Amino acid sequence: MEVSSFPALVAGPGTLTRAASFFKHNNVSNLFLLSDPFIQNSGLLEPLHKACENENITITSFSDFSGEPKLEKMTQIIEIARAHNCDGVLGVGGGSALDMAKIVSITLVADRPADDYWMMATPLPPKSLPSIMVPTTAGTGSESCSTNIISNRDGHKGWIWGPETKPDLIIHDPDLSVSLPPQLTGWCGMDAFIHAFEASTNRYAHNSARGYGHQALKLITKALPRAVADGSDLEARQEMLLGSAWAGAAIDQVGTAVAHHISHAMASLAPIHHGHATAIGFEITLDWIVKGITDPIAIEKFESIAQTLNVDGYKNLPQFVSNFMDECQIERRLPANFSDFDKQALVEQLLADHTQSMRLATSREVTEEAIKEIVDNLSNLPVM
Amino acid sequence: MEVSSFPALVAGPGTLTRAASFFKHNNVSNLFLLSDPFIQNSGLLEPLHKACENENITITSFSDFSGEPKLEKMTQIIEIARAHNCDGVLGVGGGSALDMAKIVSITLVADRPADDYWMMATPLPPKSLPSIMVPTTAGTGSESCSTNIISNRDGHKGWIWGPETKPDLIIHDPDLSVSLPPQLTGWCGMDAFIHAFEASTNRYAHNSARGYGHQALKLITKALPRAVADGSDLEARQEMLLGSAWAGAAIDQVGTAVAHHISHAMASLAPIHHGHATAIGFEITLDWIVKGITDPIAIEKFESIAQTLNVDGYKNLPQFVSNFMDECQIERRLPANFSDFDKQALVEQLLADHTQSMRLATSREVTEEAIKEIVDNLSNLPVM
Repeated sequence: MEVSSFPALVAGPGTLTRAASFFKHNNVSNLFLLSDPFIQNSGLLEPLHKACENENITITSFSDFSGEPKLEKMTQIIEIARAHNCDGVLGVGGGSALDMAKIVSITLVADRPADDYWMMATPLPPKSLPSIMVPTTAGTGSESCSTNIISNRDGHKGWIWGPETKPDLIIHDPDLSVSLPPQLTGWCGMDAFIHAFEASTNRYAHNSARGYGHQALKLITKALPRAVADGSDLEARQEMLLGSAWAGAAIDQVGTAVAHHISHAMASLAPIHHGHATAIGFEITLDWIVKGITDPIAIEKFESIAQTLNVDGYKNLPQFVSNFMDECQIERRLPANFSDFDKQALVEQLLADHTQSMRLATSREVTEEAIKEIVDNLSNLPVM
Repeated sequence: MEVSSFPALVAGPGTLTRAASFFKHNNVSNLFLLSDPFIQNSGLLEPLHKACENENITITSFSDFSGEPKLEKMTQIIEIARAHNCDGVLGVGGGSALDMAKIVSITLVADRPADDYWMMATPLPPKSLPSIMVPTTAGTGSESCSTNIISNRDGHKGWIWGPETKPDLIIHDPDLSVSLPPQLTGWCGMDAFIHAFEASTNRYAHNSARGYGHQALKLITKALPRAVADGSDLEARQEMLLGSAWAGAAIDQVGTAVAHHISHAMASLAPIHHGHATAIGFEITLDWIVKGITDPIAIEKFESIAQTLNVDGYKNLPQFVSNFMDECQIERRLPANFSDFDKQALVEQLLADHTQSMRLATSREVTEEAIKEIVDNLSNLPVM
């Protein structure tokens, strides 16, 4: 069992400004701030700017991006950060913003372009710049993860991987999450829930991953329905941020399983929110998994989740999850761009090389027949 | 909420030798190895010596100590490590060995003696030497903790504190624990159990501390009776090491409570094993706490532990703990040096300034009357 470290963490309303004293303490004078465009324009960063001004830290802000990270964008970002002699990195936003900021924190002082580290083609240089990651959506768990999703110049989705990209400090400031709308809150939260569930039950799940996973499940089942129902519930937002970071640590150790397999394959066909696709993929396969596992080791993993969630036996987990998704107002409909989607194309994506690790990690064997059934079930879902 | 990082972790039988490749990768050529005398003489370190030889890493071994760490001993240790130009630190042993090794890893390159950092008189320098901690008793959780217990030159017990003293890597090699006798296994394991319990229920317990604490409780209740019954049960030993490290992370965040308060006070009177004293202090106060808490926030903390441990309601936790201590063969007798101990002296220790933080952290107010009752109950215990 090998586990990379869980970063230091500061949590609480208004704690974003603590970034200024951290960077000051670490002798940063030119901070590179990569944030979601929405955050950048929201006024939420004002207290941070003031705190940095008080510490004589200059900020170079960047938020000129949309969608998922791309290598060509990284070249542009790193040029800007170098031009301003940045010596510290702060990421504020969802998974894409944090993944990009994490890549900047390592490649800014590297003598190679970010391209060279794609799919681990070259070992990463050691971490040398202080960095802080501040998630504003509780979902991806990027802040506690070694994986950074990024597409290469041919548009292929891949990653830059390494514990070196983890931040020195995570800040969980729930003030930054309150404006996330209920639908996105639910989708992102389900992503975190499924990270924790799959990492606690897949073939590689071990005591350490299960430890983080179970605690995440406990927090998320308590907090997500409240965060969806009332976005201004700071306690629920705070708990979702911690649950999501723990779920990130769980997948960092043992990866995911078939729900993420489905979600990645669907995203190759047409745009769909990652958390939404994952939630749908999870619900349509969980009952099939639970009915089909016979290995006592696999059964114990599901049974212990049932115990953690106070569910009467693991065979009732699918019903529990469906009720939970109801509570979190997750729509069981596909986006309009999936009306009459190409079933054969989705089957091919589910059999494509780059998605097989998630398929193979699943506790029940995902046969080709099962894949066809999954695709049939997806095609029977109503469209938004 | 502020939480320092949880170190990277490698776990499994035979993983001690992985230290060699880690140090090689981090350019260490002269390793300082501080280990318990028993471990040093056991032959258990042979594979490590061979692995380091293969990587051209020279080892300076030190194990000339007994009892708890003392500042005057640190001066001697650091002189030796400096004389050999050591550039990396490996600690192997129980809490004392690891605490000393953690202090060496920071003060070896400092321009001040370790004395200057006692009780945080001076801020610690930043961590600059690679370090690994390998616990061989599953109890103190020193490897995941910022606290390093050490007595000053006047014999006063205190500490050197700082997340900088945490290692870069923890190795949990259960091969190193199999020779720990059942009685010590039980005492050390109870210490870890109570770390997890007190950090999950004291006044400062928050979601992050409770997350680590609950997972530790789950693992330890499963593994400790097995490790006591059969020391060669590698799976149980492995789970105890992880549970103990998580319990260490829990107290690192929010500290302990009255059981440790009692244990520290007793140790000031006469030698007694820390885990044994803590277990006795825990059992004689738990029922009193559980019966006396009325604050819903405190009750929820105990109730959620009951749920995690599958106990029917928090009021049944004391009975659960007593049964668990039976299973772990914990003797409810004091060592011979406590026959007719000075009750008034113990009361005074329980009221002494340096133990008040643990007293005040307890969920139920530990009044002076309660302290007298605790001492009476202790004095009624049989002697070994």
